[in-house]
Amino acid sequence: MTRSDEPDRADLIRADDRTRRTGTTRRRFLLGGAVAGVGAAAAIGIDFALGRAGEAGPTDAAASAAPMNGDVTVPFHGVHQAGIDTDAQTHATFVGLDLRDGVDREALRRLMKVLSDDAARLTQGDPALADSEPELALAPARLTVTFGFGPRFVERANGAAPAWLHPLPAFAVDRLRPELSDGDLLLQVAADDPLTVAHAVRMLLKDARGFASVRWVQQGFRHAYGTHAPGTTMRNLFGQVDGTANPRPGTADFDAVVWAEGGGWLAGGTSLVIRRIRMDLEGWDRLDRSGREQSVGRFLANGAPLTGSHEDDEPDFSATTAIGFPVIPEFSHMRRARSDDPAERIFRRGYNYDVPLGPGAAAGEVSDSGLIFASFQADVDRQFTPLQRRLDELDLLNRWTVPIGSAVFAIPPGCEPGGYIGETLLV
Amino acid sequence: MTRSDEPDRADLIRADDRTRRTGTTRRRFLLGGAVAGVGAAAAIGIDFALGRAGEAGPTDAAASAAPMNGDVTVPFHGVHQAGIDTDAQTHATFVGLDLRDGVDREALRRLMKVLSDDAARLTQGDPALADSEPELALAPARLTVTFGFGPRFVERANGAAPAWLHPLPAFAVDRLRPELSDGDLLLQVAADDPLTVAHAVRMLLKDARGFASVRWVQQGFRHAYGTHAPGTTMRNLFGQVDGTANPRPGTADFDAVVWAEGGGWLAGGTSLVIRRIRMDLEGWDRLDRSGREQSVGRFLANGAPLTGSHEDDEPDFSATTAIGFPVIPEFSHMRRARSDDPAERIFRRGYNYDVPLGPGAAAGEVSDSGLIFASFQADVDRQFTPLQRRLDELDLLNRWTVPIGSAVFAIPPGCEPGGYIGETLLV
Repeated sequence: MTRSDEPDRADLIRADDRTRRTGTTRRRFLLGGAVAGVGAAAAIGIDFALGRAGEAGPTDAAASAAPMNGDVTVPFHGVHQAGIDTDAQTHATFVGLDLRDGVDREALRRLMKVLSDDAARLTQGDPALADSEPELALAPARLTVTFGFGPRFVERANGAAPAWLHPLPAFAVDRLRPELSDGDLLLQVAADDPLTVAHAVRMLLKDARGFASVRWVQQGFRHAYGTHAPGTTMRNLFGQVDGTANPRPGTADFDAVVWAEGGGWLAGGTSLVIRRIRMDLEGWDRLDRSGREQSVGRFLANGAPLTGSHEDDEPDFSATTAIGFPVIPEFSHMRRARSDDPAERIFRRGYNYDVPLGPGAAAGEVSDSGLIFASFQADVDRQFTPLQRRLDELDLLNRWTVPIGSAVFAIPPGCEPGGYIGETLLV
Repeated sequence: MTRSDEPDRADLIRADDRTRRTGTTRRRFLLGGAVAGVGAAAAIGIDFALGRAGEAGPTDAAASAAPMNGDVTVPFHGVHQAGIDTDAQTHATFVGLDLRDGVDREALRRLMKVLSDDAARLTQGDPALADSEPELALAPARLTVTFGFGPRFVERANGAAPAWLHPLPAFAVDRLRPELSDGDLLLQVAADDPLTVAHAVRMLLKDARGFASVRWVQQGFRHAYGTHAPGTTMRNLFGQVDGTANPRPGTADFDAVVWAEGGGWLAGGTSLVIRRIRMDLEGWDRLDRSGREQSVGRFLANGAPLTGSHEDDEPDFSATTAIGFPVIPEFSHMRRARSDDPAERIFRRGYNYDVPLGPGAAAGEVSDSGLIFASFQADVDRQFTPLQRRLDELDLLNRWTVPIGSAVFAIPPGCEPGGYIGETLLV
């Protein structure tokens, strides 16, 4: 594989573009780590809100540099892959790829070396090798690229697949479409700038196309950078606060929920369940506000449980109304999703989707919208599936939500400079 | 038409959500006008870059308030519609609607009153009347809604159509798809937050669906807010600086290019040409850098003409190379787009698009990408068509670009509080 490297020109382009963007070339801002990154981003967000330079924060130098958010980078290298404990960016594109026939272990190694090199450069605001549009690489905007392996990838690599690496069991609510499900290789490409995501996806797919074909692409979004304080739980298109009670990155709780235990090639890795959940906004809109809040078990205004006043309040499932009914109904989503077993927890990192209606749309529909549900957990069978089974059996929200795509991937650990993602499996 | 208004609850929701977002309820930031808005946004952008409160700028109070960008609003009311001289937001969704049979002048009036009311509220961060997801309305992020009328709308209104309000003449390069072309009513919904755009589009379409059906939807993006200094010319997915030499809002030049002259219902209005231009990124990538620059006539790094060093430098079309060829080739896009006639100018306000490849994609393609070309001008026939005719005859860029959608709309003037868009036509 020949690739031409033109660092000198790339540097010139970058300096020129930076000047163009801000009137001065500014020092690049490198976050010290994914977790520190959340804090630093928070500091910047607050500085922005208060309109002043921050004195505090985990990285003082970073705060005083106060870069425009296009310049903010998340480290690619590390024990874990980025894009998991990274405070969720505004835009994410998920791509599921099918390996081509004859792509063997050796080819997989070449593929992952190339893709890791692309990701290492692009996430730091540098063009990929032989980048066809190097100017589009210069505003990383917290770009992360996260790779996942499907069952066939691990098989082709002659690796030991974790027991949970298989399609989820069939659920009664599912109306899965094969063209939105499964896949051998996952790319999760996320940044605060949609142009950055588009370019990174394109560069990665160009380098992957000799090895794999695109099976599905899902483009999602959350609130834009700077519209909400960092760390605010997102809202989905039902207007619900979506993702309350998530483990908080940087805590022991998060580590226990997310990172795979034991040795083997997955140590420091995790799993990703990604499900495309179409939301029936028309039906939802016919429900009154109280009905909606009962179906979720939370107030729409701020996501507080119906027995509380703040989003993070613990729900009181024993509370009853004056006439003896539970305040938080038995069939509410929150109640069904809860488990007494602390092992049955997941880390959600989903995105909204909203795409033009296809030709087969029902009369009166005005949007094809929903949630790209994405959750990370150490063990799918132990943590995700029991939870989903409870929701499948009874969850009022099922009336307005239909899973139409589903996939499970093993997310390998990160790598150090000079290494590549997947090396623990492919070396 | 009965619609329930619940201002008290909406206010409560807003206060609650604001608290949730920032930890404190902040004063809303109202820009003094679209043009002042550009300056104020610039001031904020620079403040953000420098990490300090701005002392200067057209609206001192605004600068010192330093809102998060979710709170920034653009006035809905005014002589002109917003979303034209507004510094282009990150996201825009363009919707072309077909009027239903039997929708007459009286119905059009009702439709435009309802849609104007929705737009007036949503753009200021207030839920629409009977907003089904009021929490999604609270981060306007410079939301603008701009309405346009196609030929049949004006006909149904018994209005006098401007002579230029017709489909563009057929160009040899066109491969137009009816399902991406024309339409009776246009919505241009733009904001810096994708969730805000999704919600506003949905509310508008819900209120329009009794009167009109969706013909096409095009979702576009530019660099995110805060990644580039405001006013920076955007880049398209070829990596080109796209939109250099645009008239600058707030100047007499801009006014002359954009706003319709004379009396009649269009006074203070303009026209919009919107063309979906698919870009052959695969073919483009096979071209070397010099070939690309020659095809455009500008350097890729900073958009400077090949005879200059800065984006805004005047090109020297007489300059020749050592062997006597023009430095800026005869067939270059820039040279073909230029006219000696100062009347033949337009104001471009386009967006990139990048959507998952459809099932009919050619082997090796990795993206369905291009430009939602959008230009405003007082007179399509006089300003846009001669320019496009020259490009149609000869423009090297035509090899890598294919127009697949095309529509022309009359953009009526703005309205004052209590009025509605289209009142000059429908009153």
